[in-house]
Amino acid sequence: MSNLCSVGDYLVERLSQLGIDEMFGVPGDYNLQFLDSVIAHPRLKWIGCSNELNAAYGADGYGRSKPAAALLTTFGVGELSALNGIAGSYAEYVPVIHIVGAPALAAQNNHELLHHSLGDGDFNHFARMSAHLSVAQALLTRENATAEIDRVLREALYARRPVYIQLPSDVASFKVAPPTTPLRPSPPPVDPKAVEAFTRAVKTLLEPARRVSLLADFLADRFEVRHAVQQWVDDVPLPHATLLLGKGLLNEQHPLFCGTYSGLASSERLIRVIEDADAIITLGVCFSDTVTSGFTQNIAAEKRIDLQPFSAQVGEARFDQVPFHVSIEILHRLTAELAPFWQSPALPDKRLADPTEAGLGQQAFWQQMQAFLQPGDILVAEQGTACFGAAQLTLPVGCDFIAQPLWGSIGFTLPAAFGAQIANPTRRVVLIIGDGSAQLTVQALGAAIRYNLNTVVFILNNEGYTVERAIHGADQRYNDIAQWQWTLLAQAFGATQPTIVERVTEVGQLQQVMAKISATPQLGWVEVVLPKMDVPPLLSAVTRALEEHNTSRDE
Amino acid sequence: MSNLCSVGDYLVERLSQLGIDEMFGVPGDYNLQFLDSVIAHPRLKWIGCSNELNAAYGADGYGRSKPAAALLTTFGVGELSALNGIAGSYAEYVPVIHIVGAPALAAQNNHELLHHSLGDGDFNHFARMSAHLSVAQALLTRENATAEIDRVLREALYARRPVYIQLPSDVASFKVAPPTTPLRPSPPPVDPKAVEAFTRAVKTLLEPARRVSLLADFLADRFEVRHAVQQWVDDVPLPHATLLLGKGLLNEQHPLFCGTYSGLASSERLIRVIEDADAIITLGVCFSDTVTSGFTQNIAAEKRIDLQPFSAQVGEARFDQVPFHVSIEILHRLTAELAPFWQSPALPDKRLADPTEAGLGQQAFWQQMQAFLQPGDILVAEQGTACFGAAQLTLPVGCDFIAQPLWGSIGFTLPAAFGAQIANPTRRVVLIIGDGSAQLTVQALGAAIRYNLNTVVFILNNEGYTVERAIHGADQRYNDIAQWQWTLLAQAFGATQPTIVERVTEVGQLQQVMAKISATPQLGWVEVVLPKMDVPPLLSAVTRALEEHNTSRDE
Repeated sequence: MSNLCSVGDYLVERLSQLGIDEMFGVPGDYNLQFLDSVIAHPRLKWIGCSNELNAAYGADGYGRSKPAAALLTTFGVGELSALNGIAGSYAEYVPVIHIVGAPALAAQNNHELLHHSLGDGDFNHFARMSAHLSVAQALLTRENATAEIDRVLREALYARRPVYIQLPSDVASFKVAPPTTPLRPSPPPVDPKAVEAFTRAVKTLLEPARRVSLLADFLADRFEVRHAVQQWVDDVPLPHATLLLGKGLLNEQHPLFCGTYSGLASSERLIRVIEDADAIITLGVCFSDTVTSGFTQNIAAEKRIDLQPFSAQVGEARFDQVPFHVSIEILHRLTAELAPFWQSPALPDKRLADPTEAGLGQQAFWQQMQAFLQPGDILVAEQGTACFGAAQLTLPVGCDFIAQPLWGSIGFTLPAAFGAQIANPTRRVVLIIGDGSAQLTVQALGAAIRYNLNTVVFILNNEGYTVERAIHGADQRYNDIAQWQWTLLAQAFGATQPTIVERVTEVGQLQQVMAKISATPQLGWVEVVLPKMDVPPLLSAVTRALEEHNTSRDE
Repeated sequence: MSNLCSVGDYLVERLSQLGIDEMFGVPGDYNLQFLDSVIAHPRLKWIGCSNELNAAYGADGYGRSKPAAALLTTFGVGELSALNGIAGSYAEYVPVIHIVGAPALAAQNNHELLHHSLGDGDFNHFARMSAHLSVAQALLTRENATAEIDRVLREALYARRPVYIQLPSDVASFKVAPPTTPLRPSPPPVDPKAVEAFTRAVKTLLEPARRVSLLADFLADRFEVRHAVQQWVDDVPLPHATLLLGKGLLNEQHPLFCGTYSGLASSERLIRVIEDADAIITLGVCFSDTVTSGFTQNIAAEKRIDLQPFSAQVGEARFDQVPFHVSIEILHRLTAELAPFWQSPALPDKRLADPTEAGLGQQAFWQQMQAFLQPGDILVAEQGTACFGAAQLTLPVGCDFIAQPLWGSIGFTLPAAFGAQIANPTRRVVLIIGDGSAQLTVQALGAAIRYNLNTVVFILNNEGYTVERAIHGADQRYNDIAQWQWTLLAQAFGATQPTIVERVTEVGQLQQVMAKISATPQLGWVEVVLPKMDVPPLLSAVTRALEEHNTSRDE
């Protein structure tokens, strides 16, 4: 019997096998038994966070550059606090394994009046709530624990979305046989007949085409075909762009990379490259309102070849069981054959325009940021002026981008940048976040300090919710926020390591701080004072569309 | 047509009629139309919070001393962040009206790929999730808006629990007739036959009894019979106690008030008063694990008369439709008649024992706190050493108590104290919270500063989650937290008003700070350094019970 391990040990070992090296979370009395397994594991590390929402955002940021992420909360109070983070991971396809320490099964089955319950003896409310935000749920018992753990982990990897595991405290310490064979997710099914039909349809559309373009988005990253797509565009002279959610997916220094497409808010040449092509290949795209300036993408269905993770579509014809790895290989091969017959479109000028105004405003800030970024950086941009301003940047080689324009939860990026830094300790993580957003999750600065990270944070202080002002109520006081002294926070949160803390109001000051940070890697916490109503041009277009939508009279 | 108002105006006016003077929340683009109505209202004030969980906790703290509370969030991201707070209000019966600004109905009905949605075109996920945590839900349309608003508000008042209102942005601005007649909740139904049978059963139990005691709990406060119960015990010589959740419900200076009953962790005399009575009247009680030291209350069913908000029970016999106002009146009358025949039990000594140890530890802290409290204060005590330490205090006259031992979400009290202070601007709110808990929701200090409140906060710094250490893993590093410099936070969060910020490590320092605060009302932010493993005796008993429960082997 000496070979047995606890269910907790089993779960931790499985997570480690998947390539998860750190677990985010907050302790609570129902998960302490499991935490003993986490602490005892030789590789997986515990990352204690200030609260559960920050832990969930941290896990999301981590999972965007790792095979998956793990989050531990406690029953009721902890898990509910994390739900907004999990929902973002669900909407934007990040496989976060949400483990919830629960009361012992005996107490659950007796319907006891336990703390962290609603007091009605029903212990399934929260699992039923989480079912809306996860592709699989497991309520572990002694009998089903190992099989259920394996089932839901496979589901998370297959669907690239969160799963929910409820682990009662007594089940966590129950003894089982340790895992022997590695866990492999099922490959997506392939239907040879559908592949054949798809290939014919693609040929029919592509062969007469003289202008072909590719618009790729985040699902190519999430379903791990990013390198296959990069090889394709390196090999075939195919003008290509991404949407904002998928920014950073492809090498933006490539001569045929044309920028971040945003519907009618895109540059005229980028619109022409994408919308005027004879055949447009869309790959892993999701045309949500904020990335299309309110659904203004103009892509004719009959000219479109749409590749999705498990299926494809050509014009109106849909082909199930033609997954990414098959469809991309077919398109790569066919476009390579046909490329010699193509015409080259006029390519957009990707350089940022010179600022038209003196002083430190949005334009000057983004120009300095373009110069500051280095190959290999991870740029994290908060929803608001940060994310829509960053859309216009051309990222250096190997620079990844994290934003959340679909779920769009303000405050997400401060903990997400922390999580991305934990996942990538040797890379430089650069975060740009507004003051209104940073207030939601500011404790994450304390976490970065505690774990001694060298993340660089630029807080854009424009006195409130500028993105909301741009949508509605520019001068209404509901768009004001508490005025903090941002530069005092690093010390208050316990910073003792070398830290660059500055407040800048002029372009020259910003340049100096950036030079200092580039010279000596260290934690950076830089308050950038910007005009209250200054917004990047793309954001103006997007917010106009949103306000029209919110006040529309026709049903 | 000039008499019409918008649906938003209608809703705000209804809330104001209910006695809600402030609304807590965070703006988001789907609720900005409604916020215009809030700002335009002549009485109801907008209280902008740093994040939605803090706003929900704030609304809960507010609703514990007002007829109800209102919380405004935005669709998806905002509402999910608030759920843990709403769940606490549901578990502990606080009527919070949760209003969620949602996308325009046209966009919802078109299943558009909007931001803050899961991207699947289904806009009902979050309402279905909230249905677990609310007694009524309304999805407002132009046609149903006013009737549905009135229906769910009535439900909230009747059941004293949260309700959920989804308000699409276009519905918010739609014109309707303003409310004309006031909104009245239905009175609870009364069954005269059941009342008669109940009265007979009570007489049978009470008449031979020589020792009768009353154990009252929080539902007496929530269902607004607190004053009727106080009149009863002022009128009839009935030894009485509360549970921890209902602490502060009754005048603790009353000679027959016997303390806070906690099962076997209570004082021997308190146990005898409650458990050895010939007849025990329980009133609005909920015997959850944390308030009974793990279900160690020993109250024989056959000696018990249990009064609940809508029903009553005598021994094994249950009487539906015998609500509080009826049952309390009957008991008051019968006990007044029978009291001359009663024997008096030996009453507990409620004074705190002198500290057995030198220096500033838990015992010394609570002794100083007992002396510091003044009549009319509102004492707020965080789950952990604060709440279980406060159990042993004898509150001054008119001193209310706020804690959350059933839902038990750490971090709750910092925003809840803020909410209680907003609800009671002329009273002194005193908060006691541990360092681990305060990290979850520390932004609420910024809110207190922004709204210029004079709340007094004692942060018990014992280097981490001491309550968790007491349960399991005393020296495990998962019970450590980031080490902050607490005294820097008030200035960092923008304090410019007079503020007492101190760090105390000795009893004399604590006394001096308390004297200063009592002399000049102002915002207080006092870090009290306490030994890492020092816990109040009640907490030791509770945590031992919880650890046994969590590791129990029998199913």
